[in-house]
Amino acid sequence: MDLMSILGLIIGIVSMAGGYAMDGGNLGALWLLSAMVIVAGGALGSVMLAYGLDQFKRFPALFISLFKQPKTNMANTIDFLVKLSESARKDGILSLEKIIEAEEGTDKGTDKGADKGKGKSKGKIDPFLKSGIMMVIDGADLEQIKSFLETDIAVNDQKAASEISMFDTMAAFAPAYGMIGTIMGLIQVLANMTSPESMAAAISVAFITTLYGSLIANVICIPAANKLRMRLEYSQTIKEMIIEGICGIRNGDNPKILRERLSPYLVYTASSKKGKAENVEAKRKKK
Amino acid sequence: MDLMSILGLIIGIVSMAGGYAMDGGNLGALWLLSAMVIVAGGALGSVMLAYGLDQFKRFPALFISLFKQPKTNMANTIDFLVKLSESARKDGILSLEKIIEAEEGTDKGTDKGADKGKGKSKGKIDPFLKSGIMMVIDGADLEQIKSFLETDIAVNDQKAASEISMFDTMAAFAPAYGMIGTIMGLIQVLANMTSPESMAAAISVAFITTLYGSLIANVICIPAANKLRMRLEYSQTIKEMIIEGICGIRNGDNPKILRERLSPYLVYTASSKKGKAENVEAKRKKK
Amino acid sequence: MDLMSILGLIIGIVSMAGGYAMDGGNLGALWLLSAMVIVAGGALGSVMLAYGLDQFKRFPALFISLFKQPKTNMANTIDFLVKLSESARKDGILSLEKIIEAEEGTDKGTDKGADKGKGKSKGKIDPFLKSGIMMVIDGADLEQIKSFLETDIAVNDQKAASEISMFDTMAAFAPAYGMIGTIMGLIQVLANMTSPESMAAAISVAFITTLYGSLIANVICIPAANKLRMRLEYSQTIKEMIIEGICGIRNGDNPKILRERLSPYLVYTASSKKGKAENVEAKRKKK
Amino acid sequence: MDLMSILGLIIGIVSMAGGYAMDGGNLGALWLLSAMVIVAGGALGSVMLAYGLDQFKRFPALFISLFKQPKTNMANTIDFLVKLSESARKDGILSLEKIIEAEEGTDKGTDKGADKGKGKSKGKIDPFLKSGIMMVIDGADLEQIKSFLETDIAVNDQKAASEISMFDTMAAFAPAYGMIGTIMGLIQVLANMTSPESMAAAISVAFITTLYGSLIANVICIPAANKLRMRLEYSQTIKEMIIEGICGIRNGDNPKILRERLSPYLVYTASSKKGKAENVEAKRKKK
Amino acid sequence: MDLMSILGLIIGIVSMAGGYAMDGGNLGALWLLSAMVIVAGGALGSVMLAYGLDQFKRFPALFISLFKQPKTNMANTIDFLVKLSESARKDGILSLEKIIEAEEGTDKGTDKGADKGKGKSKGKIDPFLKSGIMMVIDGADLEQIKSFLETDIAVNDQKAASEISMFDTMAAFAPAYGMIGTIMGLIQVLANMTSPESMAAAISVAFITTLYGSLIANVICIPAANKLRMRLEYSQTIKEMIIEGICGIRNGDNPKILRERLSPYLVYTASSKKGKAENVEAKRKKK
Repeated sequence: MDLMSILGLIIGIVSMAGGYAMDGGNLGALWLLSAMVIVAGGALGSVMLAYGLDQFKRFPALFISLFKQPKTNMANTIDFLVKLSESARKDGILSLEKIIEAEEGTDKGTDKGADKGKGKSKGKIDPFLKSGIMMVIDGADLEQIKSFLETDIAVNDQKAASEISMFDTMAAFAPAYGMIGTIMGLIQVLANMTSPESMAAAISVAFITTLYGSLIANVICIPAANKLRMRLEYSQTIKEMIIEGICGIRNGDNPKILRERLSPYLVYTASSKKGKAENVEAKRKKK
Repeated sequence: MDLMSILGLIIGIVSMAGGYAMDGGNLGALWLLSAMVIVAGGALGSVMLAYGLDQFKRFPALFISLFKQPKTNMANTIDFLVKLSESARKDGILSLEKIIEAEEGTDKGTDKGADKGKGKSKGKIDPFLKSGIMMVIDGADLEQIKSFLETDIAVNDQKAASEISMFDTMAAFAPAYGMIGTIMGLIQVLANMTSPESMAAAISVAFITTLYGSLIANVICIPAANKLRMRLEYSQTIKEMIIEGICGIRNGDNPKILRERLSPYLVYTASSKKGKAENVEAKRKKK
Repeated sequence: MDLMSILGLIIGIVSMAGGYAMDGGNLGALWLLSAMVIVAGGALGSVMLAYGLDQFKRFPALFISLFKQPKTNMANTIDFLVKLSESARKDGILSLEKIIEAEEGTDKGTDKGADKGKGKSKGKIDPFLKSGIMMVIDGADLEQIKSFLETDIAVNDQKAASEISMFDTMAAFAPAYGMIGTIMGLIQVLANMTSPESMAAAISVAFITTLYGSLIANVICIPAANKLRMRLEYSQTIKEMIIEGICGIRNGDNPKILRERLSPYLVYTASSKKGKAENVEAKRKKK
Repeated sequence: MDLMSILGLIIGIVSMAGGYAMDGGNLGALWLLSAMVIVAGGALGSVMLAYGLDQFKRFPALFISLFKQPKTNMANTIDFLVKLSESARKDGILSLEKIIEAEEGTDKGTDKGADKGKGKSKGKIDPFLKSGIMMVIDGADLEQIKSFLETDIAVNDQKAASEISMFDTMAAFAPAYGMIGTIMGLIQVLANMTSPESMAAAISVAFITTLYGSLIANVICIPAANKLRMRLEYSQTIKEMIIEGICGIRNGDNPKILRERLSPYLVYTASSKKGKAENVEAKRKKK
Repeated sequence: MDLMSILGLIIGIVSMAGGYAMDGGNLGALWLLSAMVIVAGGALGSVMLAYGLDQFKRFPALFISLFKQPKTNMANTIDFLVKLSESARKDGILSLEKIIEAEEGTDKGTDKGADKGKGKSKGKIDPFLKSGIMMVIDGADLEQIKSFLETDIAVNDQKAASEISMFDTMAAFAPAYGMIGTIMGLIQVLANMTSPESMAAAISVAFITTLYGSLIANVICIPAANKLRMRLEYSQTIKEMIIEGICGIRNGDNPKILRERLSPYLVYTASSKKGKAENVEAKRKKK
């Protein structure tokens, strides 16, 4: 559960509704089905035209993922890499395979069944990290591992970025269709004007599409695109750190030096810079 | 047939028309030939001034291509590259020529005729892949092949990107001419105002150009530019993968390792990341 | 003559005027000298402040160049490079000097006179290509030639790009001064309001500056900047191709291989990709 | 204390309030709690949805930091680096440890206590510089030090940049919610119009949200994002200079040459270019 | 004196005032002190908050520099570099020191006094060029010189670019505060509406802040930012050319070849490309 996402959405909506009601605004007057059809239907149509089916069908899943906390954690991943590095030095590269298996709470033969039975209770290894370690075990050389993992990052990130851009696109189309709806309404209103009073009421209705367009963009789509893009950036940073770690393991680097080399990445988990600096120093002294 | 494109266009238009009609809007009042002449004519004129003839005459073909599904497929291309790689290792580089000929369902001498007769029923090889393989057969060295293919990507993509940008340009000009039409209308209306009622009706007409400008941009041009740009990006990714594959074939790499090295690109066809991860692992075990 | 430029300008203007007249608009009402003084004078003043004299005095020439077709042609340049390459291989590097002289229809001693007499009837060699060939004849080494020509591209393009940006700047200032004029008009109108009718007429006049600003930007400046920038990009691509060609000549590469290596650039002249693919293949077979 | 920040805020607010009051504006009429709830609540909600908790909780601290002058100083840092370089040359690399300890006014064992007692009176060493020097003392090789410090810059700056972007995001959301509030108000007003007079007063209130949105963005968020980004850039430049300095120390470069090599960075402290040029020359002569 | 800057400013202002007066506009009605306080005061406040004191105090000097022609000249600098190169080849590297001293019309001992007495009558050497030559005289090696000069460019340009960005920031804030002033005015006006006539006059006043915001941005700040940025780019190009020249001198290159290598940069002084091409050729023949 990503509490911030849920809280953000609630606070945004409650503030607007509350502020509006405080001054005697009638919330019911803001609902108009036909306006929602124009704005949401139009914007969805344009997003469908703008993207392929493969991407568009990921739209709902991406939206739901907004409210889930991603599990990857910088500090734990570093600890795991150091542990692998220690094992590789002590017991040889092949010992890594056992650690991976142990970590996944399963041995390869019963992978499927284990997954069903207790998949939730045991931490799964990040597939990116795993595929890198597997290459180390297979004895691939440093350049191969690096280039494979970097291709993996590049290809995955391009795909993820283009999926996230659906929210940006939606955030651009919604206000545009809002304005289109308002102009269509104004054309209708002005063509049939009888009295200023009736006209004012009709204009009021025409503005509702503009309101919906703005709400869809600002309450949902722009923040969603931002959060998803930040998570993507964060996961990229973790992957870059993993590459550095795996190269260190492949090179047989001293685990302590490896931990030190990865320590700058801890800034993402440490609560303050001071904490981190002390951390690093503490590590130094132990050495 | 790109169903998403057609559906997107239909859903966008139906939503707007439906939402408008739901509230008693008169769709007929939104049609005005003179407004369309101003917006579409003006925007087309500016696009013609902004581009050369070579690009402008590609405009209709590009628009039609929106509704066609491109045929290139990542997984098939990888399979084909691995097949070439196996043949090259077993039967020597020259055997590649036969595979290419077989794949095209024709031998070179009767290329033209065969093309007419059964060109549709047999899969044509991507010309980019083919020209790369031809260089391998001719015995060109690795650097030459790479540099030739990379030049080919760069030059083609620059050309394609500049063609696609016509839709962006159109999407920028259409609303501008819409606003120009509305201002011209307002100048006329305000100069000859007699009664508020007649003025309102005239203003209503003046807004129609703004509506058309917005519709041309948001219903067609912006989504079209987006979809075409995504396809271009995808075809670039495939070409980069092909370069990697051809270099592997030229180097005489093990076909299994080649397939593994290309596996990150499968993310574009695999339905889920999990599927892909298992895929990779399955491949590993076979090895 | 660049027909597209002239056609584009005419179609844009005729569409707007025609569409406006179709609905009974009075074109004469759109002309107001004082509005043109505010918008064009203000925007020109800002462009003068924004640029130096060296750039500003190129403004009219750049505008006129819009309507002239540039003469460089990708296919001819490749043919010429291959011809040079053949001659260099057969008769030695020094033979290139004769070809250059022959091509320019003059021997060096009478350069000035010949130029006057028949300068138009004979094709002049692109000065960029010529200076590169001259370096080859002088026996400069590969790195020197490359670095000299690349500096030449970089410096010239920076200068050309900054000249072209005058149209972008003009396209940004014109609507801004249009809005300034309208606000000045509205301030005057509102301060002296007597009756709604007279006010409407005065507001009508105030809108004319906004109209002019939009027209200057959208009918002329934005498309002009776009076309000039595309031509610059095209000429850059040709120059990059020339560098590759000259390096091939300097290295004594096989002319056939040189032609093949330059073939991807043909995409800019070939009418279709298929045509190009066949082209390349045809070349291959001859070999 | 960053006087410019405080002055800027005061001058901005006083100018607006003063200019408004000069013409008889009633400042009290600009305050409306419900409008502030809509704009600030809505924008905060969207920022919460757009960012994670780790970033959002840094928001207040970042805002307060605006008014604090950062302590790092280019000239002092260069002097300190040169001092370290001299000591390293004279007394060996291990002597650096003593200087660091002396500088921090504490020996390691009593770090905590010293910090409490006289932490303010003694200059703390920049932790980035310190961790670099520590690696030199530990005998890490040049590439290791460089790569570690560059990773540190990259990771920290990415984090800092994403935190600063909260102000940009807030600056984009505030006016959007301002407009949303105004449209909601207009819908309410127009639906219940009775007399033009009452309508005007109600519209007046509806505009207040637009005002608040603009004020939050322009008086606070945009300038804040700019200042924080500039400081980040400045601290990056210092860090790059520190890397160059530490590499020089590690290489055992002549301290005078080191100072000269770092002199271009002095442009950030020198009051004029002339001053700096003379500085450099003065240094040269001494040598 | 930069005549274009002064002319541009005058033409812009005269066009607006003239066009406005042509139609009977009353220029006096456009002046309102309170509006200027809101817009200029607000925008200045935000710029102060956005920048540090070091940058802000450069604001007036930068503005004045707009109207001064910078003295550096590409052709003269190239001539000077070639002269240095000739002297270095003939009389050795140490002879450069004498040329520098001669050029500055002073010997080092009396630098200060000479400067006062005849500083204006003698050309001062560009400090960037001078510090490079000094390194050559000191016998620094090529990489050191290059890296020092490149750091110098990078650091200076970052600083200069951030100073210039103050004009961009001012150009963004001025219209924003203009709009804020207008909204504050409208809120006041609409809240106290009595008759349409009095309201119109009051609205007229409210628009003045919008006008001022637009004028400050478009007449002054945007063109100023553009011109200063162009000059910065030009001075960067000269500096890059100087680096190439100094490396040539350090390497002891043939002065004629050096001049040829630097010739592409002449495009910035030559009046036409043809002129330049002939220039280069003329140089070639002499050789």
